[in-house]
Amino acid sequence: MLDFIFNAKSVAVIGASDRPGKIGFEIFRNIVEGGFQGKIYPINPKITELMGHTCYRTIKDVPDTVDLAVIVIPAPIVPEVLEQCGEKGVKGVIIISAGFSEVGNVELENKIVNIAKKYGMRIVGPNCAGIVNTHQNLFPTIEVRPPKGFIAFVSQSGALGGAILMKAKEEQFGISIFASYGNACDVNESDILEYLMEDENSKVVVIYIEAVKNGRRFIETSRKLSLKKPLIGIKAGKTEAGTRAVASHTGSLAGQEKIYEAAFKQAGIISVEDFDEMFDISKVLLHQPPAKGDKIAIITNSGGPAVMLTDACEAFGLKIPSTPEETKKKLSFLPPVCSLENPIDLVADASYERYRKTLETLVVENWIDGIIVVHVPPVWIDAREPAKAVVDVYKQGVNKPIIACWMAGEPVKEAIKILEENNIPNFPTPRKTAKAMWALVERGKILKRLKEQQL
Amino acid sequence: MLDFIFNAKSVAVIGASDRPGKIGFEIFRNIVEGGFQGKIYPINPKITELMGHTCYRTIKDVPDTVDLAVIVIPAPIVPEVLEQCGEKGVKGVIIISAGFSEVGNVELENKIVNIAKKYGMRIVGPNCAGIVNTHQNLFPTIEVRPPKGFIAFVSQSGALGGAILMKAKEEQFGISIFASYGNACDVNESDILEYLMEDENSKVVVIYIEAVKNGRRFIETSRKLSLKKPLIGIKAGKTEAGTRAVASHTGSLAGQEKIYEAAFKQAGIISVEDFDEMFDISKVLLHQPPAKGDKIAIITNSGGPAVMLTDACEAFGLKIPSTPEETKKKLSFLPPVCSLENPIDLVADASYERYRKTLETLVVENWIDGIIVVHVPPVWIDAREPAKAVVDVYKQGVNKPIIACWMAGEPVKEAIKILEENNIPNFPTPRKTAKAMWALVERGKILKRLKEQQL
Repeated sequence: MLDFIFNAKSVAVIGASDRPGKIGFEIFRNIVEGGFQGKIYPINPKITELMGHTCYRTIKDVPDTVDLAVIVIPAPIVPEVLEQCGEKGVKGVIIISAGFSEVGNVELENKIVNIAKKYGMRIVGPNCAGIVNTHQNLFPTIEVRPPKGFIAFVSQSGALGGAILMKAKEEQFGISIFASYGNACDVNESDILEYLMEDENSKVVVIYIEAVKNGRRFIETSRKLSLKKPLIGIKAGKTEAGTRAVASHTGSLAGQEKIYEAAFKQAGIISVEDFDEMFDISKVLLHQPPAKGDKIAIITNSGGPAVMLTDACEAFGLKIPSTPEETKKKLSFLPPVCSLENPIDLVADASYERYRKTLETLVVENWIDGIIVVHVPPVWIDAREPAKAVVDVYKQGVNKPIIACWMAGEPVKEAIKILEENNIPNFPTPRKTAKAMWALVERGKILKRLKEQQL
Repeated sequence: MLDFIFNAKSVAVIGASDRPGKIGFEIFRNIVEGGFQGKIYPINPKITELMGHTCYRTIKDVPDTVDLAVIVIPAPIVPEVLEQCGEKGVKGVIIISAGFSEVGNVELENKIVNIAKKYGMRIVGPNCAGIVNTHQNLFPTIEVRPPKGFIAFVSQSGALGGAILMKAKEEQFGISIFASYGNACDVNESDILEYLMEDENSKVVVIYIEAVKNGRRFIETSRKLSLKKPLIGIKAGKTEAGTRAVASHTGSLAGQEKIYEAAFKQAGIISVEDFDEMFDISKVLLHQPPAKGDKIAIITNSGGPAVMLTDACEAFGLKIPSTPEETKKKLSFLPPVCSLENPIDLVADASYERYRKTLETLVVENWIDGIIVVHVPPVWIDAREPAKAVVDVYKQGVNKPIIACWMAGEPVKEAIKILEENNIPNFPTPRKTAKAMWALVERGKILKRLKEQQL
């Protein structure tokens, strides 16, 4: 259990600095400004006080116990400080400092691993960007503080993790736990996944990996986690040049594309290609249930976007079946100008009533596993009305996923707010919408497969 | 020539209305509020004045000549009004009204085509969303008014065109001409492309099509246009279900995926899949020259994002070659912690100097056809500094495309402004960046192929 790291009650920052811009300053500031309710100890022999906290010469001078020590000092003196942590009884250590195996200094890294073992301490890093637990207001990281939420993000790359957190902050995308594990000299991706499996605030887990050290354990841990909550993976270093780039970046060997593809599949990981896709898919998996099959119905008020959406759905392997005659009969309340053929086109002037009655008819149909509702607001229609219709049907209780595609522009902003506050995720383009529905279908397949294998 | 439509000096709106929310009101308002400098004539027998303009009973009562008439009245009375337009000597007509061939009323559509022929008028529509020429402040459209710029957008689907214009307005993405051509009973996609070929304000052309009526002419026109300026295409209705969706939407037959793929290739069209991609690729083709080959160098300050970018580039068929020994020698001014292997990693603390000297070295290297510069700002580095370095090198004159990937977040906003104001387009994720460079490589290939075929 890594609880003494992610749920630390007291944190020391060894190398805390009073100079803005310095990493030792930024981390300490993040912890203080983040509103951490536990005890905070800056450690720096040259200062006596930092942001209202008494500063200590060494960690051994701290008058109380310390759960977590964050180390931000030059690599060569890390072993000495780590010994002090061990003597002090510290349980978890995050080593931000770089200059270890990633630059070929394997010896120094082995040294710190041995010290940690001697004292039974766990190390996150070295060469990492730190961790975040928003639900504890715990931000020992060099990155920005993201808003509180339910997506956990684990990243082998610190810089990439940082970019993601910035994006999360910008878009008010809620994070539960962030962990940058760097060289993974001790705590690795599998340890963190095991922790997140039990963390109730982490409802969806995302992992960015370049290379995995113990493939079998990674697959086993991922499978277990996938049975409990969705796991999204970004694997970098898939192509030949990408693999070479990983080698010069981390010193570790990234595997071949096919091997990782198979491993991801076995592990129950939903694979994504880029950041924006990662955000979209996290969002949809957080708010909507998995689809039981791949047959999708589309309700729209405009032809063009529905055609593009249909193409995109089929390109992702989803099916857009023809509307059965029986369903068409049930939809006969629609004006003749509407098209009952899936995608079902309610035409431009469709508002609350037409959307609500159509959706109510479709949600109970057995030939449909998921529904996408599209709306492109003509100037004379209030885009909030069809959004309210979707929400009203959804609130009655629905046993299949519903997502929305209210397209761009000022007029739809309020409508999207209504949808998303009621757990109907919205996506601004046909391709993004199709990919989100694909993720729900994929999640359904993964759960089915993993459960069958358990029997 | 369609100059009397896109460059009309006088516009009448037949069916102009004084009731907000009505299409006849919204179009008239768009023309007036858009700041059109020519003459504006509302036509409506029930009112005498609209937004300060004298209203006429019929177009024949207008005391002056009329270049363009916009028709917004119920379909059954369109023929009668069209006769009046012909008698008045109107040259171009935009029929917004629906209720023609798209709902099976082929007879009515033939009737209006014959009337137009009799008088030598050209018709855009029916069942369309109108047109825009920002450089003439001409907005006879039911859609929002986009900002002025240099991208032309031609759309068979009005709703989709509307969604694109809303997005353009939201993101301050400049449009030159917009044309929604609906049923294309007379003016079709090829006519509009021919017009755009000569329009100097349209530097990049985007076309959304579901089905083309005269394939040979479309290919020929597109080829000619592609030789002069980049042409981007979105083809909807590619898959089986997508084709069915087009059939029930427009009544026209969308072709099979492979046939359109071949046609697009022959036509020199750069194919895109979704709206955001369309915006990205328009932007990059507007500001950067085509690449002469597919070999790309990446300069970065962080490993992870560069690895993802490398993967994405290779997935799009680009090459990330190893850095030749000779180039590595030229880069020996870099600190030993940097990686000279492509992607060239300047490590986290790289700022102005390291970026500038590396870029200066690479821009003259013959093994490179295009350069991508990546920056993920650590808290202690001002993201504007490396942006200035890129701009300074670019301003010296560079013979290959350079694009940027300053990733997410508040800290990079100012930096991106510096880049984009100097024609270095920036993309926020590795995949988007790779796709943009792919478009420059693709554009280079298309130009080479079209020129060879001309010989």
